[in-house]
Amino acid sequence: MKITLIGSGNVAWLLGKALQQAGHDIVAVYSPTAAHREALAQVLPPAKAVDSLDLRATGAELFVIAVPDAAIASVAAAVRVPDGAIVVHTSGSQPLAALQGIAGARPGVFYPLQTFSKSKPVDFSTTPILIEAEDEQTLQALQALASTISKEVHQVDSLKRRQLHLAAVFACNFTNHLLGISRQLLQQAALPDTLLQPLIQETIAKAMQNHPFLVQTGPAVRHDQNVIEEHLRLLQDQPLYQQVYQLLTQSIQDHSQKR
Amino acid sequence: MKITLIGSGNVAWLLGKALQQAGHDIVAVYSPTAAHREALAQVLPPAKAVDSLDLRATGAELFVIAVPDAAIASVAAAVRVPDGAIVVHTSGSQPLAALQGIAGARPGVFYPLQTFSKSKPVDFSTTPILIEAEDEQTLQALQALASTISKEVHQVDSLKRRQLHLAAVFACNFTNHLLGISRQLLQQAALPDTLLQPLIQETIAKAMQNHPFLVQTGPAVRHDQNVIEEHLRLLQDQPLYQQVYQLLTQSIQDHSQKR
Ligand SMILES: NC(=O)c1ccc[n+]([C@@H]2O[C@H](COP(=O)([O-])OP(=O)(O)OC[C@H]3O[C@@H](n4cnc5c(N)ncnc54)[C@H](OP(=O)(O)O)[C@@H]3O)[C@@H](O)[C@H]2O)c1
Ligand SMILES: NC(=O)c1ccc[n+]([C@@H]2O[C@H](COP(=O)([O-])OP(=O)(O)OC[C@H]3O[C@@H](n4cnc5c(N)ncnc54)[C@H](OP(=O)(O)O)[C@@H]3O)[C@@H](O)[C@H]2O)c1
Repeated sequence: MKITLIGSGNVAWLLGKALQQAGHDIVAVYSPTAAHREALAQVLPPAKAVDSLDLRATGAELFVIAVPDAAIASVAAAVRVPDGAIVVHTSGSQPLAALQGIAGARPGVFYPLQTFSKSKPVDFSTTPILIEAEDEQTLQALQALASTISKEVHQVDSLKRRQLHLAAVFACNFTNHLLGISRQLLQQAALPDTLLQPLIQETIAKAMQNHPFLVQTGPAVRHDQNVIEEHLRLLQDQPLYQQVYQLLTQSIQDHSQKR
Repeated sequence: MKITLIGSGNVAWLLGKALQQAGHDIVAVYSPTAAHREALAQVLPPAKAVDSLDLRATGAELFVIAVPDAAIASVAAAVRVPDGAIVVHTSGSQPLAALQGIAGARPGVFYPLQTFSKSKPVDFSTTPILIEAEDEQTLQALQALASTISKEVHQVDSLKRRQLHLAAVFACNFTNHLLGISRQLLQQAALPDTLLQPLIQETIAKAMQNHPFLVQTGPAVRHDQNVIEEHLRLLQDQPLYQQVYQLLTQSIQDHSQKR
């Protein structure tokens, strides 16, 4: 497929490379900052850096909007594409409707479910790609495209993508925060930062192989009130962490009772 | 070293094998259930299965108490060992003082910081071993022993071990629960259980390479109030999860403000 990239950040950079490696033609790169669009165009030859959102002359059939979520609406309002072109965004949290009103375009979503940093290569073949479109023909075009870079392509509508995003907040954002609290507690005790890493890795591996609720361990699920009270005492100068400890203990216990 | 194991569960089984492979002699195995002590003694030849806690005749210099935390006190009260023998427990949550009052014994802690299941082999060489004792000579004996199976040996006193345990509750027990909630939310949305696994793995890998607070992502740290409110609406039938969402969001925001 002939593809134009809108944006030159983490996603444009890595997805652009993956699409090119799969044999697609990246014909143009638009991005507000000249140095950024030129740098990306240079690594994706023969892509041209372009400085206008009127992209009708780029010769592309597909336009990938990979800009911050908050900028998608303004790009959608300003962009011009040839009649019948497919225009997708790459966001997990924005609905398909965010691309309504691009004249002549067939809107779609092409969401790679992974966290990207320009500097770190990604294995796209195992990265789930979630696609959505208004009509069957567009959906099939996106399915065919996604299948050239990933073995895991799913059709997921906007409501389900929102539920998925909520699940990701628990599994990734909140989990990361707990790992941060844990690291801080190790530092407060003058223990090495890395001490818990083998245990964390094993915990995650177990939670992947089983339903996490079935392999829950620790004082909460054992209703070990002595240990729980001692832990709350150790947290007495950190009232917010104390509240987090209490609420998660309650949630674990609530869950184990229901089983 | 000549070693007697007390208990024949997950830790006795895996630690016993690791110690034997490192060249130590497991001379005897005590455990209340005959079938269990015999099964373990059989895989650790020439270890004998013994049915009494009077272990003075086993010929061991070191006795490893690997029984449930709640049973350590009763084993310590009943066990008989030769004068000057080292007796350790393997618990992360029990103090050294739990072994006070074993006549003639030098008490110690030998805590392998990992989660064990009898059926799953463990790489002891990367498993931190936390040791504690009352006197320098015992400490050195435990240090030497631990070094024969692991590259990561740390002297950690009972208070610090308690703080470590608290940190592990956040990093492992609570994290596992959040992964369970996330899995449940995927199921409620009829999405595949495994969809988030690549993202989770990458999130954990990032949190290991950096301080997690510095790589925090998601609607909380972005103060994206629209998304937060939408997520709370999606959770309206699960009030406890709603509370968890609110409190962790608050904790993340509290933290990012302090930076
Ligand atoms: N990063 C991830 O892990 C990830 C994963 C999956 C999906 N996504 C989604 O992918 C999209 C892009 O994310 P990203 O991480 O690649 O973002 P990013 O690295 O911040 O890059 C954003 C790009 O958008 C451009 N841009 C910023 N404001 C703009 C505006 N008002 N109009 C036009 N262009 C604008 C920037 O241009 P200049 O550099 O030229 O100034 C930049 O090249 C978002 O929808 C995000 O939710 C991200
Ligand atoms: N499992 C882990 O991941 C892990 C990790 C680090 C440290 N630890 C610590 O290691 C210790 C043992 O844990 P584990 O997982 O190996 O336990 P486990 O698998 O439940 O095994 C406990 C063993 O203790 C014996 N036992 C039970 N009650 C007893 C009593 N009243 N008197 C004497 N023996 C008794 C049992 O004997 P029978 O089978 O013969 O009935 C069993 O062999 C605990 O202190 C734990 O905190 C465990």
